[in-house]
Amino acid sequence: MTAAASFATWRRQIHLWIDHGAGDDLIATMLHRGLVALICANVVAIVLESVPSIAARFSVGFQAFEFVSLLIFALEYAIRLWAAPEHARYRGLSPARARLAYAASVPAVIDLLATLPLLFGLMGFGELKVLLLLRLLRFFKLGRYSPGMASLSAALAAERKALFACFVILMGVMLMAASAMHIVEHEAQAEKFGTIPDAMWWAIITLTTVGYGDVYPVTAAGKAVAAVTAVLGLIMLALPVGIVATAFAQEIHRREFVVTWSMIARVPLFGGLDAAEIAEVMQFLRAQTVRNGAVVMHEGEPGRALYFIASGEVEILLPEGKKRLDEGHFFGELRFGDMAIASHSPCPNAAVATAPSKLLVLDPVDFHALTKRHPKLAERIRALAQA
Amino acid sequence: MTAAASFATWRRQIHLWIDHGAGDDLIATMLHRGLVALICANVVAIVLESVPSIAARFSVGFQAFEFVSLLIFALEYAIRLWAAPEHARYRGLSPARARLAYAASVPAVIDLLATLPLLFGLMGFGELKVLLLLRLLRFFKLGRYSPGMASLSAALAAERKALFACFVILMGVMLMAASAMHIVEHEAQAEKFGTIPDAMWWAIITLTTVGYGDVYPVTAAGKAVAAVTAVLGLIMLALPVGIVATAFAQEIHRREFVVTWSMIARVPLFGGLDAAEIAEVMQFLRAQTVRNGAVVMHEGEPGRALYFIASGEVEILLPEGKKRLDEGHFFGELRFGDMAIASHSPCPNAAVATAPSKLLVLDPVDFHALTKRHPKLAERIRALAQA
Amino acid sequence: MTAAASFATWRRQIHLWIDHGAGDDLIATMLHRGLVALICANVVAIVLESVPSIAARFSVGFQAFEFVSLLIFALEYAIRLWAAPEHARYRGLSPARARLAYAASVPAVIDLLATLPLLFGLMGFGELKVLLLLRLLRFFKLGRYSPGMASLSAALAAERKALFACFVILMGVMLMAASAMHIVEHEAQAEKFGTIPDAMWWAIITLTTVGYGDVYPVTAAGKAVAAVTAVLGLIMLALPVGIVATAFAQEIHRREFVVTWSMIARVPLFGGLDAAEIAEVMQFLRAQTVRNGAVVMHEGEPGRALYFIASGEVEILLPEGKKRLDEGHFFGELRFGDMAIASHSPCPNAAVATAPSKLLVLDPVDFHALTKRHPKLAERIRALAQA
Amino acid sequence: MTAAASFATWRRQIHLWIDHGAGDDLIATMLHRGLVALICANVVAIVLESVPSIAARFSVGFQAFEFVSLLIFALEYAIRLWAAPEHARYRGLSPARARLAYAASVPAVIDLLATLPLLFGLMGFGELKVLLLLRLLRFFKLGRYSPGMASLSAALAAERKALFACFVILMGVMLMAASAMHIVEHEAQAEKFGTIPDAMWWAIITLTTVGYGDVYPVTAAGKAVAAVTAVLGLIMLALPVGIVATAFAQEIHRREFVVTWSMIARVPLFGGLDAAEIAEVMQFLRAQTVRNGAVVMHEGEPGRALYFIASGEVEILLPEGKKRLDEGHFFGELRFGDMAIASHSPCPNAAVATAPSKLLVLDPVDFHALTKRHPKLAERIRALAQA
Repeated sequence: MTAAASFATWRRQIHLWIDHGAGDDLIATMLHRGLVALICANVVAIVLESVPSIAARFSVGFQAFEFVSLLIFALEYAIRLWAAPEHARYRGLSPARARLAYAASVPAVIDLLATLPLLFGLMGFGELKVLLLLRLLRFFKLGRYSPGMASLSAALAAERKALFACFVILMGVMLMAASAMHIVEHEAQAEKFGTIPDAMWWAIITLTTVGYGDVYPVTAAGKAVAAVTAVLGLIMLALPVGIVATAFAQEIHRREFVVTWSMIARVPLFGGLDAAEIAEVMQFLRAQTVRNGAVVMHEGEPGRALYFIASGEVEILLPEGKKRLDEGHFFGELRFGDMAIASHSPCPNAAVATAPSKLLVLDPVDFHALTKRHPKLAERIRALAQA
Repeated sequence: MTAAASFATWRRQIHLWIDHGAGDDLIATMLHRGLVALICANVVAIVLESVPSIAARFSVGFQAFEFVSLLIFALEYAIRLWAAPEHARYRGLSPARARLAYAASVPAVIDLLATLPLLFGLMGFGELKVLLLLRLLRFFKLGRYSPGMASLSAALAAERKALFACFVILMGVMLMAASAMHIVEHEAQAEKFGTIPDAMWWAIITLTTVGYGDVYPVTAAGKAVAAVTAVLGLIMLALPVGIVATAFAQEIHRREFVVTWSMIARVPLFGGLDAAEIAEVMQFLRAQTVRNGAVVMHEGEPGRALYFIASGEVEILLPEGKKRLDEGHFFGELRFGDMAIASHSPCPNAAVATAPSKLLVLDPVDFHALTKRHPKLAERIRALAQA
Repeated sequence: MTAAASFATWRRQIHLWIDHGAGDDLIATMLHRGLVALICANVVAIVLESVPSIAARFSVGFQAFEFVSLLIFALEYAIRLWAAPEHARYRGLSPARARLAYAASVPAVIDLLATLPLLFGLMGFGELKVLLLLRLLRFFKLGRYSPGMASLSAALAAERKALFACFVILMGVMLMAASAMHIVEHEAQAEKFGTIPDAMWWAIITLTTVGYGDVYPVTAAGKAVAAVTAVLGLIMLALPVGIVATAFAQEIHRREFVVTWSMIARVPLFGGLDAAEIAEVMQFLRAQTVRNGAVVMHEGEPGRALYFIASGEVEILLPEGKKRLDEGHFFGELRFGDMAIASHSPCPNAAVATAPSKLLVLDPVDFHALTKRHPKLAERIRALAQA
Repeated sequence: MTAAASFATWRRQIHLWIDHGAGDDLIATMLHRGLVALICANVVAIVLESVPSIAARFSVGFQAFEFVSLLIFALEYAIRLWAAPEHARYRGLSPARARLAYAASVPAVIDLLATLPLLFGLMGFGELKVLLLLRLLRFFKLGRYSPGMASLSAALAAERKALFACFVILMGVMLMAASAMHIVEHEAQAEKFGTIPDAMWWAIITLTTVGYGDVYPVTAAGKAVAAVTAVLGLIMLALPVGIVATAFAQEIHRREFVVTWSMIARVPLFGGLDAAEIAEVMQFLRAQTVRNGAVVMHEGEPGRALYFIASGEVEILLPEGKKRLDEGHFFGELRFGDMAIASHSPCPNAAVATAPSKLLVLDPVDFHALTKRHPKLAERIRALAQA
């Protein structure tokens, strides 16, 4: 192996450690847990440091901890940047371009901003209050480790135009409410509604239904305006909720479709099918939700069905011992005529859900219907099974 | 019958009494109503006992009631644990394993926690204020008796990752809002925004749109930060709503599909069909919503259609008297050519909805279309009808 | 005509006047508008009467108006009860049973309660404050005239179990929050959190995100409990919203399907098709949304397409003048081969939307695809067209 | 060219400049940006002018700016009115009728109202406070430039009946809550709940969950009423949210369908297909979401697939240089047997997403399935490709 190959191998290994912490690798898991813990400890430290009595007592400790953390975060940023060409997303680009593309991505920008206080500190501006915000930005580094965050941000990004329209409407309604209130109340409460900017403060707090109660109308006309504003606030609330709910529902459906598809394509027998044929198979899957502890396959019931785990975890009993399977795996055996499709050889003896799980089941009866309706597909599966 | 068989029969009987209270059995119904009443009485007693004047007056009564309740709840827990192997969910496990699995389920843990004060009381720690929380946990024992609770918790469990991501986002936004407010307001209101933890109290109350009004900004910059925070609060509100709405909608669809399927499979004539054929029949059902008191079948109109009750209650008139049918049952008669599918023999004479009901109707015209499009299915139904 | 027949005819006429106000009948329209105006005037009067200065000044007027209104409402109730056997919903029942069934319906109970103050007044209890609530119940008489109310109440009724489960969860969370707050704050603020009922007031106002600010925690532990409670409040808000949104979406889909179906069945040519064939036609309709003022059909473009109005209003130009069509009507002409399906004879020359409208369009190209895929349907339509 | 033709050409050119600012035309883009900037500057000026100290200092400047702005807006309104006959929406109407129809549209009415202060000012009523509202109405002129606004208003318009029913329910609940509160609290707090109008103020602020805290109950009965009202407030909130969410979801689905349809119809090869055939092609598209910077097509992979951009932006590499494509365009090459469908000639060498994008992909494998299942469609595409 040449030096360049060895170098690329190392870069690949480090990329896997630092970016695929959810797998089985012990180093990757430790690394990720360590970074998550460090981020949380940082945020707690920043919050506590703002309390004068605590800050005075542990002043040296806080500074040391901040300095060490900053060094680790800077190192993390450098390593991630260096390993960026290994990302599947940037494959095919030159290393320099891949790093540039990575540096422009949202998580990388957050990482960079989170290390900036180090630079400011070295430049002697470490006492600026505004640095607090940059330091707290570290919290969002957690986003990388949350599997649900990707769905949420994809949903929000998909409907950014509609959300912006909502914001424009909110601004417009706020302006109208504020000026109406200014007109009717500026004589009764000159210090609170004397100018439109003053009234805007009241309007935004009312439209968002926060309602602190530091400013409220006292005249009958003012109360009427406030009542209308409060009811409009309900609509202002309904618009983003409706948009986010819709976008999120679509995102979930897309995600589920992709998960199901890739599960089926992973079954060795179905792997040889083309996209249209996999879609046919998908339509014959039956959804089944099982609770934690539910027995999915009893001992001594061979050839019952094929089970695909859409979410959750199932423990199967194999001759060589127990094995836990999670999202994306399948198990069971499907006997049909002279064909048998099994997940393992020999087939597992029993299966128990070890978490609330959603399974997709392919029953012999459905498989029968599938092959009856698509004889060519059946022949093809038969041929693949005998191969 | 041997002693072991008799024992198993008893256990089965007690399981049916204690776990299937919605059926027709009088003992089971009484038992369930009694337990629900006891839980409610307990919660009321705990709340009243916290009022010093009432507690002083009925002190002995409260103590006696608490003691008796605890004994009953402990007994209930023991019986449920003993009867656990009869649960359909744990069938196929050994009795000991079934009990262990049951003891680890959420309702059993709530039951156990609800009886803990008895133990603490016996150990002499009965005066601890924290016991209040354990005692109030009894309220959640009601969850077992609410049919909608299962749907809700299934929906929440399905999207727990996304809800956790929401929570992480809420924490992040809260931290940023709090530190921004701390920076701009700590001079104007040192006692309220002097430290970040103080500002966090303001931030969380604003982001959740509660807005007590005990803390609010007074400077222009502070008001600008608060306005942005309040608007972000709308998004913080929209995210969980969107997620829960989506998850709940999916849960409902799944539930309805299962209910419909099992209703059709219960029709004697369709029971012999395979899964794919039942799915064909399902597509030809027409939904109909009727109000309380609506006449579904008039007297002297035989062979009109088959009605499946998806929800609600219908009273049918049979020669031997009236009979009430609820969710999951079917009635009516479908005459088609030389075939007749009837729910009862002879067919009911009339039917009136006794609650707002949702019916799925199989009309002769739809049945005709079904048999025309699937001649093999028609032949099969014909064969089954003549058998 | 015999007296009984004449009587039944009168009852039918009065039923049509009083229950079908949305039609073309002038008397029915006047009657309905008059009743809506009377209800609104009543509510305004009741609200104004509660202001002592106004009540003192117009005392006699208010009493007279109330008395006249009560007489009219009592008369309305009596007439509706008498005409109940004409309701399509109660057809097939004896008059006495139909009236009993009607009297037990929600609108009738509201009508009855709204007239009760008359009875109480005659009995000398007219001064009771509680009568205010009975009098204001009149407002809900408006529900009868709002077309959207039926959809809303159907949606709420469909998910009443889930909403009840929400309420149980809300109660449980409220109890836990209240007792937790009572434990941590009862020493700091004995007058506000000294008993659990006191703390419950705080808990419910926080969980619903109202947050008056009359009660709020002051200790650090109390603020932590309040923060958790406020976040739980977001979930408490998300649950009913998710349920109502889902239920309402289903209700809308059901309603739209029924509207579309009945529109197609009303086209003379399609009226002879059976249910399955109408469903085939439905799949070939293309949705089109037009703005107010949009030109749907230009002059001199015959045989363009058939347009069904799903919602909104369209003005068509016929040789005899202009005509406005609304929801449920269709217009246009579809020429295909030797067939021509026209809404009017001769076909309208032009069409302009006079409100934002949703149209379902059957194009010649789609009709071609329909007949190619279902040759039997095409033959049948051809036969019907030539008949 | 005659004078009339030249005139019509000018009108068309001005219509394109003033109404199609999103295109490539430099003048149109400048015009639109200028108008948006002017509107924003106007709103800021109006808000600032309400602050006495600022108004006094820059009095002349504000008046001059207002006057110039009004002139520009009046000119804009006149030009738009004059160019109205060029609108696609009013094609086929006479110029006078087109202008009348345009003048009655919502954006035109807003434009007119925004110019009214000019008229009032000329008539000497320029000092009226109410003019503030008319002047702030300018803000809504921005609606014309926001692409998401159309979706939102279409969604709201579609469910206006249900939203009105919500409003009626809100009014009814508010009336009942206010009178119940008036009954139980008017003795304890005569100045706050002494009359129903006073109590209505409390009721609306509680039901919308604003909760200022200026009025709240102090008696136990009053607190019970307030608790029920607050919980009802959650439902009042859930109703509009559910309605808006449903309406918006439907609007999005409709929009996406239309976008996809028109994209496929724009592929030269598919343009010759009829509606039913395009629908067939649509079913074989596979959705793919790519991040900013993702490489969609690598260099040297010809004939991979056809990509349709549903949203976002993609940069393709052509022999003549780079080119950015956005929503509605397609790129790539599909080789299948002896056929090749390409977006450009020669086919682009590489493609990189320059924004988070949603692509619809037509793979050779899916295209194969499509042609196998619809041999006539395949023949037709083959014929079109060779033409």
